[in-house]
Amino acid sequence: MRIALDAMGSDRGPAEMVAGAALAVRDADVHITIVGGEEQIKPALKKEGISHLVDFVPTSQVITMHDSPIEAVRKKKDSSVVVAFELLRKHEVDAVVSPGNSGAVMAAAIKFLGRLKDISRPGIASVFPTLKGPVVVMDVGANVDCRPKHLFQFGVMASAFSRIMYGIENPRVGLLSIGEEGGKGNALVKSAHSLFQSSGLNYIGNVEGRDTFVGDVDVIVCDGFVGNVCLKLSEGLAEAVLAMLREEIGKTFKARMGYFLAKQAFSNFKKRVDYAEYGGAPLLGFNGTGVICHGRSNMVAIKNALLVADGLAKHNVNDHILAMLENSKSALSQFEENNVPAGAA
Amino acid sequence: MRIALDAMGSDRGPAEMVAGAALAVRDADVHITIVGGEEQIKPALKKEGISHLVDFVPTSQVITMHDSPIEAVRKKKDSSVVVAFELLRKHEVDAVVSPGNSGAVMAAAIKFLGRLKDISRPGIASVFPTLKGPVVVMDVGANVDCRPKHLFQFGVMASAFSRIMYGIENPRVGLLSIGEEGGKGNALVKSAHSLFQSSGLNYIGNVEGRDTFVGDVDVIVCDGFVGNVCLKLSEGLAEAVLAMLREEIGKTFKARMGYFLAKQAFSNFKKRVDYAEYGGAPLLGFNGTGVICHGRSNMVAIKNALLVADGLAKHNVNDHILAMLENSKSALSQFEENNVPAGAA
Repeated sequence: MRIALDAMGSDRGPAEMVAGAALAVRDADVHITIVGGEEQIKPALKKEGISHLVDFVPTSQVITMHDSPIEAVRKKKDSSVVVAFELLRKHEVDAVVSPGNSGAVMAAAIKFLGRLKDISRPGIASVFPTLKGPVVVMDVGANVDCRPKHLFQFGVMASAFSRIMYGIENPRVGLLSIGEEGGKGNALVKSAHSLFQSSGLNYIGNVEGRDTFVGDVDVIVCDGFVGNVCLKLSEGLAEAVLAMLREEIGKTFKARMGYFLAKQAFSNFKKRVDYAEYGGAPLLGFNGTGVICHGRSNMVAIKNALLVADGLAKHNVNDHILAMLENSKSALSQFEENNVPAGAA
Repeated sequence: MRIALDAMGSDRGPAEMVAGAALAVRDADVHITIVGGEEQIKPALKKEGISHLVDFVPTSQVITMHDSPIEAVRKKKDSSVVVAFELLRKHEVDAVVSPGNSGAVMAAAIKFLGRLKDISRPGIASVFPTLKGPVVVMDVGANVDCRPKHLFQFGVMASAFSRIMYGIENPRVGLLSIGEEGGKGNALVKSAHSLFQSSGLNYIGNVEGRDTFVGDVDVIVCDGFVGNVCLKLSEGLAEAVLAMLREEIGKTFKARMGYFLAKQAFSNFKKRVDYAEYGGAPLLGFNGTGVICHGRSNMVAIKNALLVADGLAKHNVNDHILAMLENSKSALSQFEENNVPAGAA
């Protein structure tokens, strides 16, 4: 598979992105096109010794975290984000990986790829570590105000992702709510519950926030507001926990000695929960494959994101999504007949 | 202050609740009325040696976690929850503390106390530990579908709580959202933003999930669905983090030795994040003071909850709330004039 890597707009700078590409081409059978500023990329390619192993497309503009997404995509025509998605639209690559402004990446995907047939709201999934395996959460920020149908489609897309990336034939799907019984939740979740029940998904009912990290569910569905809050809360809490532990350990010599002895355990733990191991957040529901990486992604995170993009493109995630949607078509139209939106009556 | 302690319905049983009461009466000038089953309470009082220090009101029924809240409050007239709130209504006590079914506690508060004047939606606040001080989050589960006005009132009530419990004269209030700019968030948060701006609260704008644990905000406002998901997600994540660390540390002798040396640091850390230190979740917006404790509360958590209830009653939290509402009255009516709810036009 051919993958365009947007090497600009990350916190760590283009050299780290190129280092990630170097890890990927040496690890796997993947063809990478690096997109970015010539001045920064060329020396990095030389340093990594991969100038002959990857393609390079120079760009002159950068979309930063402070740019307004839609405007930036419209105006910065020679930015790495826009050029990478243009390559994908022209089928010169099979997927795009970007660590940049995620709103701009979404906007570029909407503009250059368009929505997948029958998907009303494409979105962003994210992978959380748990005590057992990873869990896929969708949506984590693209769609803040949703209807039951959108949640249902998130369930379909995240299930397809879970099947392809983790080999789970029939992923268990839960609706994120505030009580396990089907009758509990806000108006959106209560209404979506019956749609999920009648769908072809392997729906196990409501799950609560505390179930997220236990590992007894493969896919958690929520609207993008709740999902984004959860994503950032988890990041913040994990950091706070480690900072507090470090503070306490730093207080006595004995504890510092103890930490020294247990260091390997701590670094194994960190590896287990490190977002870098999970390879970024896939864009799902577009006519084309994209993966958004954390702005702070290091080379390992970039390598893993490239491999996720490779897997999604290779296994045609969209074919899986369309097949699952087809299976649930009658359930969905039945639900929509019974639930005419307020105001339309 | 006189406080009724509902000693039934917790995970650890009545004896632990009585032990919590014993800690409180020995620590502070507080009068406790224990409400619960005679067979369990009497021996526990004797064991703790506090039979002469507290009052006891026997009840014959228990509302369990599996009971439907509203039905249970209606039918189980001699349950500890119902009897405790009846004591409060009759002004025989000044506050109620309960570790039971939180839905039933809410239902009893609605039935026996009623809403505070000018408060549309009473709710439940919760205190989260941060790298600096505690942060008060409201609502954490009582009100799942909210309007801007409700969020605003949560901000007022949580500010009053923060002022009384933590001595913060003018608590910084943030709206939980998914981007720091005022224009970001779901429809509810975007709309509430302007109301918060014009209110008399010390509003610092949107805060994100990751800001929760940093400690640069004193009050975080969200609807009860989001708040409850966050509360349970945080609990689940903190448990998962410790479980993973334990697992990694258990793998080698060296790491176990290290843990042994650093043990004190770990237990200091645990104390810092332990819900038991924070004294339960206050019910705010009722004609009377109530505190809900975690079902797993140990005696320390119960003692702290009793002290929180004592503080809220002693300092007349409701007077603070009413004064703050009065200050914001014109801002609120201005907002409501400008934002006629959809469908009412």
